[in-house]
Amino acid sequence: MMIGAIDASPLYRIANPRSIAVWGASNRLSSMGTLLLGSMQEDGYTGAIYPVHPREQTVRGLKAYTDVADLPETPDLAVIVLPTAAVCEVLEACGRKGIRQAVIVSGGFKEIGGDGIVLEQRLAAIAERYRIKLLGPNCLGSANPHINLNMTPLPNFGRAGYVGLASQSGSFIAQMYDYLDRFGLGFSTAFSVGNQLNTDLIDCLEYLGACPQTRVIALYIESINRGRAFIEAARAIVPHKPVVALYVGGSESGRRAAFSHTGSMSGPDDLYEAVFRQCGIIRAQTVSELFDFCWVLGSQPCPTGNRLAILTHSGGPGAAAADISCRVGLSLPGFSEETRRQLAPFIPNTGNVNNPIDLTFTKDPQDFFLSIPRILLADPGIDMLMIYFLMPVDIMRRRMAELGLTEEQIAAYLEEMVRKNGETATTLRDTFSKPVVGFTYRSLREVLVRGIIENELPVFPNPERAARSLAALVQYHRRPKA
Amino acid sequence: MMIGAIDASPLYRIANPRSIAVWGASNRLSSMGTLLLGSMQEDGYTGAIYPVHPREQTVRGLKAYTDVADLPETPDLAVIVLPTAAVCEVLEACGRKGIRQAVIVSGGFKEIGGDGIVLEQRLAAIAERYRIKLLGPNCLGSANPHINLNMTPLPNFGRAGYVGLASQSGSFIAQMYDYLDRFGLGFSTAFSVGNQLNTDLIDCLEYLGACPQTRVIALYIESINRGRAFIEAARAIVPHKPVVALYVGGSESGRRAAFSHTGSMSGPDDLYEAVFRQCGIIRAQTVSELFDFCWVLGSQPCPTGNRLAILTHSGGPGAAAADISCRVGLSLPGFSEETRRQLAPFIPNTGNVNNPIDLTFTKDPQDFFLSIPRILLADPGIDMLMIYFLMPVDIMRRRMAELGLTEEQIAAYLEEMVRKNGETATTLRDTFSKPVVGFTYRSLREVLVRGIIENELPVFPNPERAARSLAALVQYHRRPKA
Repeated sequence: MMIGAIDASPLYRIANPRSIAVWGASNRLSSMGTLLLGSMQEDGYTGAIYPVHPREQTVRGLKAYTDVADLPETPDLAVIVLPTAAVCEVLEACGRKGIRQAVIVSGGFKEIGGDGIVLEQRLAAIAERYRIKLLGPNCLGSANPHINLNMTPLPNFGRAGYVGLASQSGSFIAQMYDYLDRFGLGFSTAFSVGNQLNTDLIDCLEYLGACPQTRVIALYIESINRGRAFIEAARAIVPHKPVVALYVGGSESGRRAAFSHTGSMSGPDDLYEAVFRQCGIIRAQTVSELFDFCWVLGSQPCPTGNRLAILTHSGGPGAAAADISCRVGLSLPGFSEETRRQLAPFIPNTGNVNNPIDLTFTKDPQDFFLSIPRILLADPGIDMLMIYFLMPVDIMRRRMAELGLTEEQIAAYLEEMVRKNGETATTLRDTFSKPVVGFTYRSLREVLVRGIIENELPVFPNPERAARSLAALVQYHRRPKA
Repeated sequence: MMIGAIDASPLYRIANPRSIAVWGASNRLSSMGTLLLGSMQEDGYTGAIYPVHPREQTVRGLKAYTDVADLPETPDLAVIVLPTAAVCEVLEACGRKGIRQAVIVSGGFKEIGGDGIVLEQRLAAIAERYRIKLLGPNCLGSANPHINLNMTPLPNFGRAGYVGLASQSGSFIAQMYDYLDRFGLGFSTAFSVGNQLNTDLIDCLEYLGACPQTRVIALYIESINRGRAFIEAARAIVPHKPVVALYVGGSESGRRAAFSHTGSMSGPDDLYEAVFRQCGIIRAQTVSELFDFCWVLGSQPCPTGNRLAILTHSGGPGAAAADISCRVGLSLPGFSEETRRQLAPFIPNTGNVNNPIDLTFTKDPQDFFLSIPRILLADPGIDMLMIYFLMPVDIMRRRMAELGLTEEQIAAYLEEMVRKNGETATTLRDTFSKPVVGFTYRSLREVLVRGIIENELPVFPNPERAARSLAALVQYHRRPKA
């Protein structure tokens, strides 16, 4: 089913609740429920939050209720973080109150086998009776940073982005906030589906397909139960929005780990590979690739082909980048006569205008990052550009201090560089509409790298991740059209 | 040739000069020669440094000499960073003074073709006449952090380590100091060979083979000219010291980039692959892998096999690690009955004692990082261990502040954690002599991760790099014995 208006989705009020009741939060700081409530508060969710607690008057400063029946309104969403044995009864009470959406974090159901299976069936019956759409059980909630909603145990500190995630692991929401932030990325909306009682990856995929803040969709998959529905949903979405999938159930160890984790039965790797190809889904082999590919697919325009120019001021990093780019299927053509003629004034006699173009040293950072890229991107034989960045800010600071600059002058100079670099990233994108990425061996947290990343020019921590992501971008745009 | 005593090597006084004359350094801050001299001074080299300059009285605070003939002694090493046209004459003067070692950073020789080739022949003739052993031309010098010697344009800030590097790119010395430091790594000695006039990768390989500070050797290769000598040297060294090689000349783009870079003629990828295999050299596909493999090969003991245990408190990261570990050839066996029995008290009812062992949450960090690893490593069916670390220090700080701890108390608590983690890393290594690595999606710069890394337990920024490095370790120890 292709969702038209996002608010027609059964998940809309899970991702966009106006009010939330929470079970399992207390004033005991280390409990999972308290941590979840803490994240909601710290990240600045502005809807009403109603802690339900048998004894406390207040929980984390909020008025607490002993019973869901006592709530002053029927909240859009119930978040349940209780011991396994208490969950069914609470969900029943929620149903009676008229709550139609729930997130059940509690584990101890299908994934542990035996009694857990029976308990999950009871839960399913209650959900069905009251027509409750729920995430979980055994999930880590969901997040919609665009409304500052974070229902995971770890705070996000607020960055909202364009990556939609549907995941069979909640860790890949909660534990990736800091990781994504280093890449200038954030979630649009992220769902953890846990045991997929009545909401599965496909429901989430459909929601994210319709979500206007989502530019690209990431899937973390341990198994897919509704194969045909998955294919239909993906085929409807992919032409409008790229989908990247990590499937870990295809190896023997991955299959067993997935079964322990969410009780899901994985299928053969070949089968998933074929399904992904058929749908035009880009496959990632690792979590890093999953988000790397989203970064480039979500920020870079459609390339006209796979012909890459590499710009460097150091021979080794250039050669290493050329080698790996070639190995992942990109081509590095020579430049046209016209391009070489235009480049000549910028190249010292030790440098060369082959591809990679190697300046051997940078006289003027504006030449390196603006003038030369403009020439390269204007070449009709070049589809995209990769730039090596060495901007060692600690050493630059030290050199400026040696020159007698004051702390204030140094800060002002760096600020100006950050501003200029940001402007350059924007100019290159707006002028040429060709993909541009960078790589560096410096930390992505350094202010100069950061300034480029913040302007949606992805700078990877090595050339192989840059090259593989560009290859994924090419693959997406070259997919067989249905 | 296998070098016995390190000081018998013709490179000994290049890597361990007692005194250095420098050409091309001035008081103009941005010149390459000045930067090199600056690095020597800033990194704290304690030998005598003699700047040679036609006009200046002093250079960067050091007494300058107008002519090499005027120097008060014959220095062990000449470092030449002059315009191409001046190099031959200066080397000739060095020879007359009796200098027998040189590093020639200047480019514009063989690598630019035409006149450059003629000029390099002239340089070779001078070197031969005076029996000068030299690195370069067109190199970026060398570094021996164990004597605080850094002849590259970028400061190292002092970390000495156990990775010996012989590189056809100087960037992989100068531009990797900061990178390696993030991994707790440093160079023992690093050579950049440039155009390899009379010192090539093989000379450096032999030196590093004999170097007592070097535990593992990294090679960055664009081409090997003396194939037979390379094989002989490698076969003599590998049984005693692992060698990891990155060869970038095997792809079409890599071959062309290498030719532009150092004028070297690369050979077919298959040929190099066969040579590496024959010698027991571990091949890296990228620069990151080159140093990743060195990290594990240089710090971890010989594994008894390829059977890996994975320890996690989060299902997704565990499953993703299991999947990729399996794909790179490691095996994840189940644990023995005895091991499962011993593990049981540590595992909550939502967790499981399969492999990956998933706690679902950590009650006590000491259980997670000490008690459980002890049990796993004691299992004779387990050869090595991979641990997922989530230690979000920013969030821990915030939680402690909420509990009312003062800044000082928080700092003391974290310091104590760092100390304990360091102790644990050491205990695990000393007790079991089995490889242990970690992975995290947090920054490696965070204090808690850092504390583990500093105690020689490698923590990788994702599980795939951890798994591939363990696979490289297994590969090294399983090489066919000659």
